[in-house]
Amino acid sequence: MEIRKDTAIKKKSINQVPGYRNFPMVPRVVFGRGSFDQLSEILMPNRKHSDAPFIFLVDDVFEGTALIKRIPLIFNDQLIFISADEEPKTEQVDYLVKRIRTDFNELPSGIVGIGGGTLLDLSKAVSIMLTNRGSAADYQGWDLVHKKSIYHVGIPTISGTGAEVSRTTVLLGPKMKLGINSDHTTFSQVVLDPDLTKGVEKTQWFYTGMDCFIHCIESLSGTYLNAFSESYGEKALDLCKEVYLGELSPEVSRAKLMMASWHGGMSIAYSQVGVAHALSYGLSYLLGVKHGIGNCLVFQHLEEFYPEGVALFKLMKDKHQIQLPTNICANLNDSDFDTMINVAMGMEPLWENALGLNWKKVITPEKLKSIYKKI
Amino acid sequence: MEIRKDTAIKKKSINQVPGYRNFPMVPRVVFGRGSFDQLSEILMPNRKHSDAPFIFLVDDVFEGTALIKRIPLIFNDQLIFISADEEPKTEQVDYLVKRIRTDFNELPSGIVGIGGGTLLDLSKAVSIMLTNRGSAADYQGWDLVHKKSIYHVGIPTISGTGAEVSRTTVLLGPKMKLGINSDHTTFSQVVLDPDLTKGVEKTQWFYTGMDCFIHCIESLSGTYLNAFSESYGEKALDLCKEVYLGELSPEVSRAKLMMASWHGGMSIAYSQVGVAHALSYGLSYLLGVKHGIGNCLVFQHLEEFYPEGVALFKLMKDKHQIQLPTNICANLNDSDFDTMINVAMGMEPLWENALGLNWKKVITPEKLKSIYKKI
Repeated sequence: MEIRKDTAIKKKSINQVPGYRNFPMVPRVVFGRGSFDQLSEILMPNRKHSDAPFIFLVDDVFEGTALIKRIPLIFNDQLIFISADEEPKTEQVDYLVKRIRTDFNELPSGIVGIGGGTLLDLSKAVSIMLTNRGSAADYQGWDLVHKKSIYHVGIPTISGTGAEVSRTTVLLGPKMKLGINSDHTTFSQVVLDPDLTKGVEKTQWFYTGMDCFIHCIESLSGTYLNAFSESYGEKALDLCKEVYLGELSPEVSRAKLMMASWHGGMSIAYSQVGVAHALSYGLSYLLGVKHGIGNCLVFQHLEEFYPEGVALFKLMKDKHQIQLPTNICANLNDSDFDTMINVAMGMEPLWENALGLNWKKVITPEKLKSIYKKI
Repeated sequence: MEIRKDTAIKKKSINQVPGYRNFPMVPRVVFGRGSFDQLSEILMPNRKHSDAPFIFLVDDVFEGTALIKRIPLIFNDQLIFISADEEPKTEQVDYLVKRIRTDFNELPSGIVGIGGGTLLDLSKAVSIMLTNRGSAADYQGWDLVHKKSIYHVGIPTISGTGAEVSRTTVLLGPKMKLGINSDHTTFSQVVLDPDLTKGVEKTQWFYTGMDCFIHCIESLSGTYLNAFSESYGEKALDLCKEVYLGELSPEVSRAKLMMASWHGGMSIAYSQVGVAHALSYGLSYLLGVKHGIGNCLVFQHLEEFYPEGVALFKLMKDKHQIQLPTNICANLNDSDFDTMINVAMGMEPLWENALGLNWKKVITPEKLKSIYKKI
């Protein structure tokens, strides 16, 4: 399990004042329909020389599609298709790094990730591990990476996770699911081309977009928020409402959801998620439920904590005729429930953000069990 | 005169696809009340060694105030007070660069600008000219800077210009007022501490905030907009409304206006200003009227182009009992009017953004004269 969204750092600085995170932004971004075709031009000045390739990590759903022909492969560039059916793993990162080191005598010019959260997170991790020793698992945590990653480009093909702007890459390791949270994780360049999200399947579109929506509801009603994250979170939420409740053309809808994901990701700089994520981690840990759908399964039962947000969520779900799976927890025994409850209760910063310092007065194992039983 | 806000680049890329600007974002930002006191910690890893100083360019309104004691001067760091009474000039940049080169045997570790748009723009320009030959005037234009600027930090003490995030530094040169628009102009680091705007005088607070408001109205109703810039512009506009029409505490108001300026600045990535700026440049060129107030003087008479925006502007002006100067153009002769009209009519991208390709059917010298006569 892991805390996907970072909280604002509340440490003492060397000046003994309360510290705020010095947030690393993506230093370069291009936005526009068809901007994918600027990739060749964008990469060119970052090619160290003809023997230092670009490695393209691409979601294998694109294998054989027209998009592949538009990837600007030259010299000894390499294209690697990767399935996003499972969550990204540290051993997968280690394998990719080893493969790249074996195939080439020197460091690549850079890594280009093309896909959803899984591909983006793998690309971030590979770019870090090409310059840092050991296994990716050694760097799961906060600010453990000290050597600069190689140049890496993120090109999202589905909107909602915010992985394109975040400073984390969430990996399933041998011991835990946890992000490599570091200033070196952030992409060097992002290409936002809304046309790339054209073929996304409807339920995937809904669940991934709801990742953004639910995160915004949780952070905006949390206690950790400041005006920076609030303004990004509010804009992301407004855009989600337009996309899922408005009557937009498909083209406008794709562009706005891409910006919702971007702003939602930016809002994590000084905010934290809450009740839905805490419970969702329990589901994920025990049953392997994926992040987007897990959040939805939990969130629908959280009227007590997020009455307006849950009402909006149900409107969106009904409008798009999304049927959430039921009876997920029907056959679990007491020990299973205890496992999920322990995982959820362990997410202290999330509870503190959601309910304040005295959250334990509200949140009890019985209460969580009653919510899980509804799922 | 100059076009302060950049337009999206409509060039052909090497791939012969329509090109979108690959926008340089500020790679590091810290936000929070009191975050100014993290400056020492932020600068430390960027100090090349004890002989390479940081040069602090500070608005001279802060001379003798408590803020100065909080500037982390160590080793041979230098603090230079600069008046913001006049617009920043290329010769001022050249003088500062010469002075720094004379005082030190090698390049400084960096430049830190503390103040409003003038100080931020000077700091950007000095950081560029320390690594580029000749005069700052040689680089006024678009993408003429090819050598990386030195590390430079922007710390705004008034909100609205968006200079803290933009890729331009607008300078009055021997021939023209024009920005050094380049990817090397953008700050390396920005510190957003809303408490630094505490002492801003009320009319200045209004005029500078209206710089953001008017820019948003112009870009959001323009023809150049895309979803990226729209989302930032909408958020900036929402925040301006909250600040100037809502009932916020001073603390919340300062934080929200700082974010309005930030988002408004970001919205320039793929947008352009319009009628108010075109006419305002005429006023500026002939009469030296400053940017913020010039926009207000013009904008109040633009109901025809921006009916809702002008209505909102008047509500804000009345709520805060701002009296705009009158009879600015009362004593001008025909030749003066012609000068202003020529300057305004020359701003083709602004008119095209505002009114489309056929803008000349609407905008005539007579029409502009009738507007100027009201001012």
